[in-house]
Amino acid sequence: MPTAAQLTRLTLIGLPNIPHVQPGDDLATLLIASLEVAGLAIEPGDILVITSKLVSKAEGRFVDLRTVEPSARACRVAERTRKDPRMVELILRESSAISRMRPDVLIVRHRLGFTLANAGIDHSNVGREGEDWVLLLPEDPDRSARQIRQRLHDLAGIAPGVVISDSHGRPFRIGTVGVAIGLAGFPAAWDKRGQHDLYGRELHITVTGLGDELAAAAGLVSGQGAEGLPAVLVRGMTLPPGEGCAADLVRPEALDLYADHQDAGE
Amino acid sequence: MPTAAQLTRLTLIGLPNIPHVQPGDDLATLLIASLEVAGLAIEPGDILVITSKLVSKAEGRFVDLRTVEPSARACRVAERTRKDPRMVELILRESSAISRMRPDVLIVRHRLGFTLANAGIDHSNVGREGEDWVLLLPEDPDRSARQIRQRLHDLAGIAPGVVISDSHGRPFRIGTVGVAIGLAGFPAAWDKRGQHDLYGRELHITVTGLGDELAAAAGLVSGQGAEGLPAVLVRGMTLPPGEGCAADLVRPEALDLYADHQDAGE
Repeated sequence: MPTAAQLTRLTLIGLPNIPHVQPGDDLATLLIASLEVAGLAIEPGDILVITSKLVSKAEGRFVDLRTVEPSARACRVAERTRKDPRMVELILRESSAISRMRPDVLIVRHRLGFTLANAGIDHSNVGREGEDWVLLLPEDPDRSARQIRQRLHDLAGIAPGVVISDSHGRPFRIGTVGVAIGLAGFPAAWDKRGQHDLYGRELHITVTGLGDELAAAAGLVSGQGAEGLPAVLVRGMTLPPGEGCAADLVRPEALDLYADHQDAGE
Repeated sequence: MPTAAQLTRLTLIGLPNIPHVQPGDDLATLLIASLEVAGLAIEPGDILVITSKLVSKAEGRFVDLRTVEPSARACRVAERTRKDPRMVELILRESSAISRMRPDVLIVRHRLGFTLANAGIDHSNVGREGEDWVLLLPEDPDRSARQIRQRLHDLAGIAPGVVISDSHGRPFRIGTVGVAIGLAGFPAAWDKRGQHDLYGRELHITVTGLGDELAAAAGLVSGQGAEGLPAVLVRGMTLPPGEGCAADLVRPEALDLYADHQDAGE
């Protein structure tokens, strides 16, 4: 009979008491303070999954829509999508192409490579007065993940894996799921090709979206309760060796069978 | 300071000692035996995530490719995809349409509605002699999930949530992630519209793919080690009220902006 210690067990803990973050706040310091409140300390192999919203706030990625002058192109797209032209202007500035547009829908290829609705620009939980403030994704979430990881190492002596997560819709399936848009400290895609199955047959199509599965798992915890838990500690993963980044999870356009773009109204 | 009990904590445990399953095996009995080995019993609110492969084996969804006569259409698709015409024949029988095909790639809309490679037909870990046996997805995974849940209730007195998981590739992103193809006992999609954010703003696009996030989380545990852990206990979720099924996660074709099909070579 396996003892409890021999079971394969993964634990996810929502970090408590994360305050409302202001531009310039040091997230690593806040995360360690929260771990202390929870009676926890970073252990080797731990992973911290942090919502992109928390990172964006710390990086001051707020935009006041009243300061945005929509281009003629943004106005055309806004008409077709029935969206605020100033919001569309920001979405287009953050994007390299329009993937799909319909009334109330604007799915783009983000400059970071991700295909997602509204370039990930967020109107809810922004935490500023009035209806006019929105929040862009972090400028370079992989860089943010590396910096947070380094800073956690400096403060705590141990560098955890770091994932910066966002919630994306998907073609074909209903509902958003957590995905990794920034990552540091381990491979984002776990390539098991060359390994063998239980019966000695070589595994074929076995690259696992490890960073995305971690973000999805953390999403289960972040989504609990009305309060929101913007950082989740994941303990118990045996990670593959190596380093990676969330950009490794972006399928190159030339290899993407669904990456046709729509006319942007030009 | 919150006590350990007040922290939001999710625990995932890979069930040990699941034997090689044979057609006709009662999975609920095997799962409860495994839980006992692990010193665990089902508690209210628990969720069991079971790989589709385990369910398919118990349901005897094996096919001997030597018994499959490929149609002329299957032969044409096999030529374009460089796949075994007998395998293509099975894929087409399991599918309602071809989504994309290229050399070495055949992505279809499965008769169950899912868009996935090779109709989910599996060649690895099948556990039968020779190269000629393959394994189809369960005939009706939502029905299987309901049956397993009912049988667990009969045996253990508590009905856990049940998810039957598969690993799917995604447009736009590298690597497979766990998704729910069968589900019973709770809503597969968690509709939070109408709730309010931290600042009182009504949440807009907030249907979460709860069943998929659970399957992805369990995939982190199932994928640990070479042995494979085909069933994972998830403990600690506060589930939304209601019942659902994995079919709720399939975006209706008419509402799917990426659901154009390719000519099937006819």
